[in-house]
Amino acid sequence: MIWPSHGSNPQYLFKAMGLALPKQYIDFSANINPLGPPPVLKEKWTDFFEEITVYPDPFATQLKDRISKSEQIPSDSILIGNGGAELITLLARMLAGKKVIIVEPTFLEYEKTCQANNCEIVYHQLREPNFDLNIDDLRSSLIDADALFLCNPNNPTGIQYPSTTIKSIIEECEKRDCLIILDEAFFDFLIDYDSFVPYINKFLNLIIIRSMTKMFAIPGIRLGYLVAQPALVSELSKLQSHWSTNTIALLAGELCLQNESFIKETQEYIDYERNRLFAFFKQNEFLVSASKVNFYLLQDPLSKDQFSLFEFLLHHGVIPRHTFNFPGLEGRWLRFAIKSHEENNQLMEVLAQWRQPHSSS
Amino acid sequence: MIWPSHGSNPQYLFKAMGLALPKQYIDFSANINPLGPPPVLKEKWTDFFEEITVYPDPFATQLKDRISKSEQIPSDSILIGNGGAELITLLARMLAGKKVIIVEPTFLEYEKTCQANNCEIVYHQLREPNFDLNIDDLRSSLIDADALFLCNPNNPTGIQYPSTTIKSIIEECEKRDCLIILDEAFFDFLIDYDSFVPYINKFLNLIIIRSMTKMFAIPGIRLGYLVAQPALVSELSKLQSHWSTNTIALLAGELCLQNESFIKETQEYIDYERNRLFAFFKQNEFLVSASKVNFYLLQDPLSKDQFSLFEFLLHHGVIPRHTFNFPGLEGRWLRFAIKSHEENNQLMEVLAQWRQPHSSS
Repeated sequence: MIWPSHGSNPQYLFKAMGLALPKQYIDFSANINPLGPPPVLKEKWTDFFEEITVYPDPFATQLKDRISKSEQIPSDSILIGNGGAELITLLARMLAGKKVIIVEPTFLEYEKTCQANNCEIVYHQLREPNFDLNIDDLRSSLIDADALFLCNPNNPTGIQYPSTTIKSIIEECEKRDCLIILDEAFFDFLIDYDSFVPYINKFLNLIIIRSMTKMFAIPGIRLGYLVAQPALVSELSKLQSHWSTNTIALLAGELCLQNESFIKETQEYIDYERNRLFAFFKQNEFLVSASKVNFYLLQDPLSKDQFSLFEFLLHHGVIPRHTFNFPGLEGRWLRFAIKSHEENNQLMEVLAQWRQPHSSS
Repeated sequence: MIWPSHGSNPQYLFKAMGLALPKQYIDFSANINPLGPPPVLKEKWTDFFEEITVYPDPFATQLKDRISKSEQIPSDSILIGNGGAELITLLARMLAGKKVIIVEPTFLEYEKTCQANNCEIVYHQLREPNFDLNIDDLRSSLIDADALFLCNPNNPTGIQYPSTTIKSIIEECEKRDCLIILDEAFFDFLIDYDSFVPYINKFLNLIIIRSMTKMFAIPGIRLGYLVAQPALVSELSKLQSHWSTNTIALLAGELCLQNESFIKETQEYIDYERNRLFAFFKQNEFLVSASKVNFYLLQDPLSKDQFSLFEFLLHHGVIPRHTFNFPGLEGRWLRFAIKSHEENNQLMEVLAQWRQPHSSS
């Protein structure tokens, strides 16, 4: 079976499985803020219509200025992108033919884009169920490496690596003249987060990717940014297509970044829901990854076959993200987004149904 | 002086010239339909808001199906892109390090993206004021070429090359195993147009690029497509970043393609305005390129210095597209979009003012 490479767009998952897409379902396969976009976007949406007739600012000056102020870095250290995925594609293009290390299991675009650019890929595998990241294990993988892709907090596990570990890895990479690409697509869901952005001034090998589509629930309009030394930003921008980030995304991005209370509210909502879900999972003997963000991996240790659980969920209108294409997971887990209170309730109800006849299997 | 690489975003032009952006101006530097977007987009705009929370369909299945039906080609011959510019970037990436021929003066992205991918670039220069394209002249440029970029109707001249010439070039390129990239960004402004899309079935070396941002006045949300043999489409799609075309653009694109009467109305409007403008230019001894679309090049043969005209226009709130960075033009012409009746009137008024003291200079 050819599995869809990502979550969301469940029509392709059902098609791959030869099933009809049900009329009613809850899509847990996309890790988007369950509170939806910040209210200001809805308020301004009508005004945005006029802007569709205007070419985007190819230099995204105003959005960069805003990020520059909030992150306290110069504007020329910032590259705005058509979603985090575009920034990953640009990095892979820059690294064409080079040796890259990917800490697995992780977001699939690192592998896909590096393959498309004929990179030599070394997979540094973290082991289930804890997925601990250890600098000593990593050291041998880093020999002769040109770049390391590291996602923190990691997708699909939701695990936040210790800051001391990240710091050691940045230093180790610097010694080896190896770029470290730190993908922080979900950093803003963390209640406790040590920013590595100030490190770009000291470590010329550090590149940080940020997504704005998850926290602000705007995956449909695509927006992300990258932070690195100006020379690297300039090199990457030459590979970027002109007017790459659309006008609506640029305007929405400026508004979103003025919503600190929205971010805090989201963090608290997710934290509450995650605790509630995880208590249920513990009580019902499901295993979960030690996620700190808005998604997690789940496994039923009482069932030898996670595929049966997957099918059961789909037939009950619950769509998880399959993990068949994550190296090191190969379908032994399912990924779920933390959605609204009501939707999470429905998930627990369906899992309770699953557990009923399976608890002694 | 470092000139902005494209029209639109006039703040950068004024900045480059050390001038303040006036409070009131008419931007003739972006070649966008003066009628604005099809009315259906405004009607549906409120509904689109819900879609910003949804990941785009990475395969753009519905939009491809619509184009497939209207152009009578298989869906797998179509690649949807984040504007024509992204498709050009992908082509240049595919052609990295190869020898490419660019028929100049033309859209600057061919050169920019090929430079970024270390291509060997040969400029095939057409000569002002007629910019005739001749297959015999081109033949020598094509020796050992891997790809030819040809824009038809051409930007910035607006000239439509004869179909017989295009056909000969496609055949000549095929003989030489050279790709021909036919950029038809403005084809839908032509009242008489012979489609080359059916040729992709016979000529495996033919790639056609279409923009949807000009006719449908949606440059802010980015949308274009490419038509070629499935094998080429597949190769290019691997280089494309995931979710590259946003959800709003995909939905808007489907609606736009159901607007044949809107396209016809636009063509007639532009034709009427172009005739009116060109009559004025003839009467007032301005030279123009033989444009068939919604923009044209203009030159004042009575003034030795076109830069004075450029400055005069800017000071009078009329913003043309400079041509300093077009090989073969180097500032000797100015490009103007055909805008609304009223805006074109204002352009003529300002040019009449310019002519008054200059007619005998």
